[in-house]
Amino acid sequence: MSERSGSEQDFVVLDHGTGAKLSRELVERIAEALGDVYIGQMEDSALLDVGAGRIAVTTDSFVVTPLFFGSGDIGKVSVCGTVNDLAVSGARPLYLTLGLILEAGFPMKSLLRILASIRAAALEANVKIVAGDTKVVRQGEADQIFINTTGVGVLERSPLRAQAVRPGNKIIISGNIGNHSIHLLSVREGLGFERRVESDCAPLNGMIDMLLKSLPEGTISCMRDVTRGGLCAVLHEFARASGHTLQFHKERVPVTPEAVMAADMLGIELIHLANEGCLCLFVDEAHAEQVLGLLREHPYGRNAAIIGEVTATPEPRVYMVAPDGTRTMLEELYGAELPRLC
Amino acid sequence: MSERSGSEQDFVVLDHGTGAKLSRELVERIAEALGDVYIGQMEDSALLDVGAGRIAVTTDSFVVTPLFFGSGDIGKVSVCGTVNDLAVSGARPLYLTLGLILEAGFPMKSLLRILASIRAAALEANVKIVAGDTKVVRQGEADQIFINTTGVGVLERSPLRAQAVRPGNKIIISGNIGNHSIHLLSVREGLGFERRVESDCAPLNGMIDMLLKSLPEGTISCMRDVTRGGLCAVLHEFARASGHTLQFHKERVPVTPEAVMAADMLGIELIHLANEGCLCLFVDEAHAEQVLGLLREHPYGRNAAIIGEVTATPEPRVYMVAPDGTRTMLEELYGAELPRLC
Repeated sequence: MSERSGSEQDFVVLDHGTGAKLSRELVERIAEALGDVYIGQMEDSALLDVGAGRIAVTTDSFVVTPLFFGSGDIGKVSVCGTVNDLAVSGARPLYLTLGLILEAGFPMKSLLRILASIRAAALEANVKIVAGDTKVVRQGEADQIFINTTGVGVLERSPLRAQAVRPGNKIIISGNIGNHSIHLLSVREGLGFERRVESDCAPLNGMIDMLLKSLPEGTISCMRDVTRGGLCAVLHEFARASGHTLQFHKERVPVTPEAVMAADMLGIELIHLANEGCLCLFVDEAHAEQVLGLLREHPYGRNAAIIGEVTATPEPRVYMVAPDGTRTMLEELYGAELPRLC
Repeated sequence: MSERSGSEQDFVVLDHGTGAKLSRELVERIAEALGDVYIGQMEDSALLDVGAGRIAVTTDSFVVTPLFFGSGDIGKVSVCGTVNDLAVSGARPLYLTLGLILEAGFPMKSLLRILASIRAAALEANVKIVAGDTKVVRQGEADQIFINTTGVGVLERSPLRAQAVRPGNKIIISGNIGNHSIHLLSVREGLGFERRVESDCAPLNGMIDMLLKSLPEGTISCMRDVTRGGLCAVLHEFARASGHTLQFHKERVPVTPEAVMAADMLGIELIHLANEGCLCLFVDEAHAEQVLGLLREHPYGRNAAIIGEVTATPEPRVYMVAPDGTRTMLEELYGAELPRLC
């Protein structure tokens, strides 16, 4: 097309954000890149059948840096993060919206690569993208690309709520912790671990659905995907919600030796790091081994482990138990030194 | 609290974005500022009753500059824009999610002012905020604050679709066009019009609900809120959707003399400018005067006017008719020179 300059083809330009013809062309390219995963009708609202009358809704903005990493990119993280937030509530993820904020000058090639990744993750998670919005800001007003995904799911079973967690519940972790953050930090800082520690970024709704279908209702009291704030933040959340002391055994937490080594060198703790494909489950004691077995049969749960339990002590605290039996009370971190990993 | 330094109280800091305790405090302050408008349970997903099985979903990111203007701010625009997108589809807006991307150093006072404005707009629109997400990026990585709102509404009547627009439909505009953009441009560039041309930013769901309740189904073929791209973009959208030529009479388009003067001085056309509280309706010819009467009784529709019609010509074009009868074919703008007004 004669109207399109080379630069408009290759880079996002400010006029892509104006609501005029060029905006529409960008939106059409985005819809084309998403293919059949995108079912928006390009009107103001998507109209959706949700069957039952109860839905789950969650929102997340992604400011990941670096944008591209070994086993994924900001697009994959944007889909997985929101799908996982819906799935851990007991909902079946159905629909996502996609809000893009693009910095003028962002390479169109990178945008299309991210969209391809969004498409692949949406296909795996079996969700459709139903509405989108794209804004463009001037160079220096955003860092390349920010993505918001908001997810809608249906509740076909009782929701899982934090309040259901109770003394005696076993705490299960579905996979190695810290790998996502170590991988990204390594790519970002050029530390050389990135080829040995892969991000765990994955949509977990398939594994969660398998679990909930296989187990009597109530077996799993609640679960969370372990993202920002890491395992430590999740355990503190459930200590507060249950009003009881949680304890876990340090040596039972699944980790890779490479992640431990990297964390040691960086002076950080794996329990504080974000993951993008790891669940923390609170499970009825009598069924804990069964849940563990089911998780280990799934590709995303191969390294699952029972790491601890909710104790009868009615104080909202978190203790880490060392192999020699020493108990250390873990404080919730006040801030952290590792921003923008999810 | 001794842990909080003055700076953490007064400004957003990077550690507000980490998922640790400081993050939680920020989220709690946000929830507190939103008050009863916020019904999120601070879990990963909000669980919502939607009654009927059909919902409408829309998403929008807001990168408005300036953040604060005469009759509103980015918070009000973020609620109104998404509420209006839902309402024009025929849905009743119920729930919003709120995704914040904050630049480190952003004054907490400004954040709280924006949240108060979100709260007020949500109260007026009668929607609840059900889930939120807050990310903090380093100074220079975002321009102060970006807001994503995603809206969920229920469809209690047949949805309004662009395909329903047909020859003979009258085109009605609910209010003066261009004021929002002229106001923001004036604030931004210090042009001095801002006290005489106010933004029209408003939630229109009340007015739309009143119309749809008062009229037989099918009277209104479709409608849009006239935002980015302005009236011209909306008319082109409906010319394409209906496959017919649309024409409107230049002198019938409601405008304020001040906005015309400002647009002339700036060398821009009001029909290309974004509004945040203006509807374009396509209405059955026989009921056009009735719709106009209903609109004019509503505070947000006082300046409504019938400006044109969908002709029988089966070509997707837009014509502007001058008082002397001269018809000018309007091209869709390719880009535009006025970014970041909504």
